[in-house]
Amino acid sequence: MTLLEQASRAHLARDQRPIEVVAVAVREPDKPRRVPAGVEVTGDAKALCAAPGHDAVVELIGGVDIPRELIATALRAGKDVVTANKAVLAHHGDELFALAHDVGKRLLFEASVAGAVPILQALQAGLPAAPIEGLTGILNGTCNRILADLEHGKSYADALADAQAQGFAEADPSLDLSGADAAHKIALLATIVTGRRVPLDAIRCDGIEAVTPADLEYGGRFGWRLKLLARYRRVDDESAAIGVHPAWVDAQSPLGTVGDEDNGILLEGPPFGTLVFQGKGAGGPPTAGSVVADILRAARGEGQLPASRGDLRVVDPFTTPGRYSLRFMVPDRPGILAGIASALGDNDISIAAVEQPPTRSNGPVPIYMITHEVETAALDRALETLAGEDYISESPLRVRIEVEAS
Amino acid sequence: MTLLEQASRAHLARDQRPIEVVAVAVREPDKPRRVPAGVEVTGDAKALCAAPGHDAVVELIGGVDIPRELIATALRAGKDVVTANKAVLAHHGDELFALAHDVGKRLLFEASVAGAVPILQALQAGLPAAPIEGLTGILNGTCNRILADLEHGKSYADALADAQAQGFAEADPSLDLSGADAAHKIALLATIVTGRRVPLDAIRCDGIEAVTPADLEYGGRFGWRLKLLARYRRVDDESAAIGVHPAWVDAQSPLGTVGDEDNGILLEGPPFGTLVFQGKGAGGPPTAGSVVADILRAARGEGQLPASRGDLRVVDPFTTPGRYSLRFMVPDRPGILAGIASALGDNDISIAAVEQPPTRSNGPVPIYMITHEVETAALDRALETLAGEDYISESPLRVRIEVEAS
Repeated sequence: MTLLEQASRAHLARDQRPIEVVAVAVREPDKPRRVPAGVEVTGDAKALCAAPGHDAVVELIGGVDIPRELIATALRAGKDVVTANKAVLAHHGDELFALAHDVGKRLLFEASVAGAVPILQALQAGLPAAPIEGLTGILNGTCNRILADLEHGKSYADALADAQAQGFAEADPSLDLSGADAAHKIALLATIVTGRRVPLDAIRCDGIEAVTPADLEYGGRFGWRLKLLARYRRVDDESAAIGVHPAWVDAQSPLGTVGDEDNGILLEGPPFGTLVFQGKGAGGPPTAGSVVADILRAARGEGQLPASRGDLRVVDPFTTPGRYSLRFMVPDRPGILAGIASALGDNDISIAAVEQPPTRSNGPVPIYMITHEVETAALDRALETLAGEDYISESPLRVRIEVEAS
Repeated sequence: MTLLEQASRAHLARDQRPIEVVAVAVREPDKPRRVPAGVEVTGDAKALCAAPGHDAVVELIGGVDIPRELIATALRAGKDVVTANKAVLAHHGDELFALAHDVGKRLLFEASVAGAVPILQALQAGLPAAPIEGLTGILNGTCNRILADLEHGKSYADALADAQAQGFAEADPSLDLSGADAAHKIALLATIVTGRRVPLDAIRCDGIEAVTPADLEYGGRFGWRLKLLARYRRVDDESAAIGVHPAWVDAQSPLGTVGDEDNGILLEGPPFGTLVFQGKGAGGPPTAGSVVADILRAARGEGQLPASRGDLRVVDPFTTPGRYSLRFMVPDRPGILAGIASALGDNDISIAAVEQPPTRSNGPVPIYMITHEVETAALDRALETLAGEDYISESPLRVRIEVEAS
């Protein structure tokens, strides 16, 4: 019995009408494949989306332009649409959500954000009762998996190759590693939370490309784990701070326990305090589960989105003061520590801890620093000054410390 | 603006009808109180529940018999009912759910289990798509708070007094400490998962009354935290293993990070793997948030329960083999360790670790043991034998180890 058949049976048990797959559109309709009896197989997806007699269309083909056309066609034909395609929503969500609202149909996309974690349903069903002030997510399973592998001493290249071999990583891994994929997802979540379109290019995005196993070991000694966090914080009805950046979290905190390719989301709001959701961020079965859940929601008539309230104004989440770890790669020669320390001191950056681990290599050596709480703009200025120094061989790794000061 | 007014505004923004409070029933209607203009105040709750012209009733009075009558009256009058009252559902849920189903109305109770955590909504909305194989919950915030306090060295008496002063603990704290409250909640969750009534008295229930700060310190050295777990595991369509018992979990696991009076729930099932939910288990604002979310669900026409499928057959969750920690309190004299060790050995209980910490007291001293994986029935037999020995001054503390063996 397929997952959908199982679900349909349970759905029927709730005195609701049966769910039937009537047709499938595939690229090569003549290729032999296992399809339940009575199910039409066609190569013309567009005609199928436009055809009368179906209640809902499930789009699982990936890409942007073709799904955009298919989803719009299905909505205009009066069908609900379920998709696991985050790219098409990140680029054309405003147009497609508006269309869904205008025709009074549903456009459901639980599987596209945080895989198996029912975060969209929780936000949509519970939101009016619990205005969300903050949302912090580990939304990119590939990055989380690579970071976990680096913690175990695997090299970056090996960790990435393994993630690709296992089908986690995007074909172009820079979408994952740069934080762009997490930015797409936090934008979708912010749209659900605010009812407003989120301009993607306004989201500040720092990735994890520069992180090394040694960096993770350094933080690990304090009980910290490095995570790529996607963050939303309400400013007012029309604006929010949104960004993606690496951060240290306590290994024994809810987000600190999010391992492997899992996703985790922490919601903050006045009635409930904090709520945490954690689960598989990707993979076949979790995606299938979320798609089937969306099909059932559509069948129950749930999940209608409100009309868009216009664009959200996005501000930099780094305007508030904070603690940071810094890692410089410098040649092993006298005077450099003094140079870095004065550039920081000149900008009122107060240092709480410094370490230059002993090394036997002749190449650049790492210097680690942890700041007290500082103005982020002041740190920006200090790092800008240092970027001009000849001894700074690569951009320093800057990681926000999201661990409660003890 | 109250939470409900705020929610109603957001609800309206979704093109839905407004939510209005029209009347409130209180014990002393003549007492001066802050009530919005136009809201009727009455002392006759039953007449209000029976009166025509309202769509829904919210029951927040506590107790069992009166709420049972009020909820039934409201349902028979064709109203949806929202309650935060776990006791009335634990005792009369079968009758009230059946009534709600028969009259085609909703009986919603998100606030009654795990406070702010939207677990019922997640189960009800997502369940048909994702059959739940296992559910493990930290469902009693009072116990979790007391255990956290004991970890910080507070005495049991002080921890309990603080929980009572802060309004967490039930008036009769034995309901919390014995695991009975957690059993009520796991029974409600199992009812949602299976669609079957769960006979409360079939649930094996071990509490945390005997736990000491020294016990928590012992486990803490291995990176473990002691939690009171309520557990459900599917056996087949008609039966499940359900129980409440203390267990060691990894401090860096999702349930291990559930601190203070929070609740946490871990779901397991084939499509999604594991899903974790964590949040405040009780308190005014979280309860209010969940009640308002239920009011909105009712207004949207969501949350209808299926007809009951009969009684669930409940089996002991301890029939599977497992690892345990044991703590005996014994007089400090020769031969006792040998006596305990042979009683265990005679029953094929293999010991992985033993410790008798040095002590300066003249009273009974603790002996800690950790078993390899053993048959639980064999351990039962060994402990039964030992219970007859004069040197066993109190029942040993037995804690299941739910940490992956390394």
